[in-house]
Amino acid sequence: MEVIEGGITAPQGFKASGVSAGIKKNNKKDVALVYSENMCSAASVYTINKFKAAPLVVTEENLKNKKAKAIVINSGVANACMGEQGYEDAKMMAKLTAETLSINPEDVIVASTGVIGVALPMEEVTKGIRAASKELALDGSKNAAEAIMTTDSVQKELACKVKIAGSEIKIGAMAKGSGMIHPNMATMLGFITTDANIEEDCLADLLKEAVEASFNMISVDGDTSTNDMVAILANGLAANEEINESSEYLSVFKDALTHVCTELAKLIAQDGEGATKLLEIEVIGAQSLKDARLGARSICSSSLVKTAMFGEDANWGRIVTALGNSGAEVDPSKVDVYLGDLLMAKAGTGLVFDEAKALSILKEKNVKVRVDLKLGDFSAKSWGCDLSYKYVEINAEYRS
Amino acid sequence: MEVIEGGITAPQGFKASGVSAGIKKNNKKDVALVYSENMCSAASVYTINKFKAAPLVVTEENLKNKKAKAIVINSGVANACMGEQGYEDAKMMAKLTAETLSINPEDVIVASTGVIGVALPMEEVTKGIRAASKELALDGSKNAAEAIMTTDSVQKELACKVKIAGSEIKIGAMAKGSGMIHPNMATMLGFITTDANIEEDCLADLLKEAVEASFNMISVDGDTSTNDMVAILANGLAANEEINESSEYLSVFKDALTHVCTELAKLIAQDGEGATKLLEIEVIGAQSLKDARLGARSICSSSLVKTAMFGEDANWGRIVTALGNSGAEVDPSKVDVYLGDLLMAKAGTGLVFDEAKALSILKEKNVKVRVDLKLGDFSAKSWGCDLSYKYVEINAEYRS
Repeated sequence: MEVIEGGITAPQGFKASGVSAGIKKNNKKDVALVYSENMCSAASVYTINKFKAAPLVVTEENLKNKKAKAIVINSGVANACMGEQGYEDAKMMAKLTAETLSINPEDVIVASTGVIGVALPMEEVTKGIRAASKELALDGSKNAAEAIMTTDSVQKELACKVKIAGSEIKIGAMAKGSGMIHPNMATMLGFITTDANIEEDCLADLLKEAVEASFNMISVDGDTSTNDMVAILANGLAANEEINESSEYLSVFKDALTHVCTELAKLIAQDGEGATKLLEIEVIGAQSLKDARLGARSICSSSLVKTAMFGEDANWGRIVTALGNSGAEVDPSKVDVYLGDLLMAKAGTGLVFDEAKALSILKEKNVKVRVDLKLGDFSAKSWGCDLSYKYVEINAEYRS
Repeated sequence: MEVIEGGITAPQGFKASGVSAGIKKNNKKDVALVYSENMCSAASVYTINKFKAAPLVVTEENLKNKKAKAIVINSGVANACMGEQGYEDAKMMAKLTAETLSINPEDVIVASTGVIGVALPMEEVTKGIRAASKELALDGSKNAAEAIMTTDSVQKELACKVKIAGSEIKIGAMAKGSGMIHPNMATMLGFITTDANIEEDCLADLLKEAVEASFNMISVDGDTSTNDMVAILANGLAANEEINESSEYLSVFKDALTHVCTELAKLIAQDGEGATKLLEIEVIGAQSLKDARLGARSICSSSLVKTAMFGEDANWGRIVTALGNSGAEVDPSKVDVYLGDLLMAKAGTGLVFDEAKALSILKEKNVKVRVDLKLGDFSAKSWGCDLSYKYVEINAEYRS
């Protein structure tokens, strides 16, 4: 696997664009399009929040046939909690996109992100979709990645290529998200393109597994939004032998997809609102994958762990507290806790450790915590960030 | 029911004290004793964290016979995650207390609160217990309430009296807690005394129910600590006809006990680390009590709701987001959301509301949110606080 340039337009046959339509203030880009002339196999994963936003409902309907050609995304307004009007507006976004591209509305994936409970300004959205369709370009990935940002401080895109039976396959992706990020995909959007030839149910399964290990293992503040979605389009232009569940190349594609998702997820965690550090929490020695993930996510989500990290305070007691609340199977008398390579607690009991060494580890931009449950062979990683004054500032005044 | 002065020593026959033993810095009080010469029926509720601290383990052993005469508490060091040594130290606290009071070690309830993973300084603890036993007084409640504080900014105590079949019964209580406070009793301690004559299993049941509706319905930061405990002693000196499960006065006592627990819980939420406001979240119209509690607690625990409250931002989208993640049965198309008396969303859809009125509600010290699920007749309240810069400051540097 090789990392390459080009983001979501790196795979053959994908164009993208991002324009400013006046939904966001200050002329910021706020409407993005991704388009493949060739029909794509398509799959998507949605928020588990019961208040599922209208664009997700429309996308789910449109993806019933597992096919799509375009993705339209607006930022600024989430089109969530707007009742029947919200649904009609999301349908209209698909219709307008289809019209400008001369495709069927059912072949359009729709996504929105921004403030909840505010009506989409459809005049601006219409203008934006028309402008974005004119701007579609093979090198449009950065514009698209910019247009889906909300409180993000950096664009998030990535691409890689792998060889499968002599064919070169590319995967491109972009994502947004920096707050309300939590296991099960809180206010984050992820879009992935590939020119791989892959069977559509296999694609859906691989996406789900990749999301579980990546986007669902990050946390910024513990909330899961109404609008989260990760979608993938595969247009088959690489003309490789079809990848399916029994294909010998399945794991090559799966590893590449999981890599792309994981790296994007880490970019989101690192860009967490007000974050000064990326936290990586690894739980090893768990009885099951579920336990390992529960433990890692609980530590990563704890406000007390996050504030201690911000304060560069080696307060490992908060780590075991969060672990003890996770629901994971834990034997308190067995647990070892490491900060970086420094053993801080052994068999559930605090050690006298080198405070200077601990501080030097905590001063890094990437802080790793490893917890060994010593109960089995399963492990999982979770990523998050510290909780700073800046987080409070950003979130105390988001609407205004 | 009448609220009275006197805190934990208001009921007949209870003495208390609080002294400075040098466990905490700056000569702050750090060892408290509560004592009844008469044997008491006793019950306790413990943290659900798997890393249960040593004093809780010792208390559970000592309360097997449902009897106790004394409570010893230290603040400053939690005696959690200290392995066998922690258990021995907690046992030693009971033994030392028993020696100074000439009672059995098994009649002592032991509690600790403070930093996790640090050994109890037993020399100071020993000195403190001996001094506290000498200071025991009928008006010692304030000293005791002060000695159990950690990051608390105010002492928390309360007492009330009720009439039961001609007898006057008093209930007194004290609590500590201002951070790591969450459903299922995070870093909070609550101690209740009563002179009621009450059957011991009935006492245990009533305590459990009262805790569910009070201490388990508050949240400061979503973490549940290793040391949480609520314990009650009933010495029977009011000489009332024994209260038991079939007693006609059961509900009178239950209401009084629940009132005391709820008011203390609110004091804790209000004193949440860095809090500027008390939040009261009420969920009505739920299909079950469980659903109502899940919904109320989820909203109250959301960092995004809490930062919006700090910023006095009427961002009701975050309220429905937290509700949608709560696990409670919800029909998004039915939900009404009120800020104070102001209807902000009807049938799951945002309304255009009076921003000036919303701001005036948000500027109050007590902010109430009411969510009507319109699915049934169950309701629940949860209490919490906003999330401020000060919270981050307090928690980024707790150990130092």
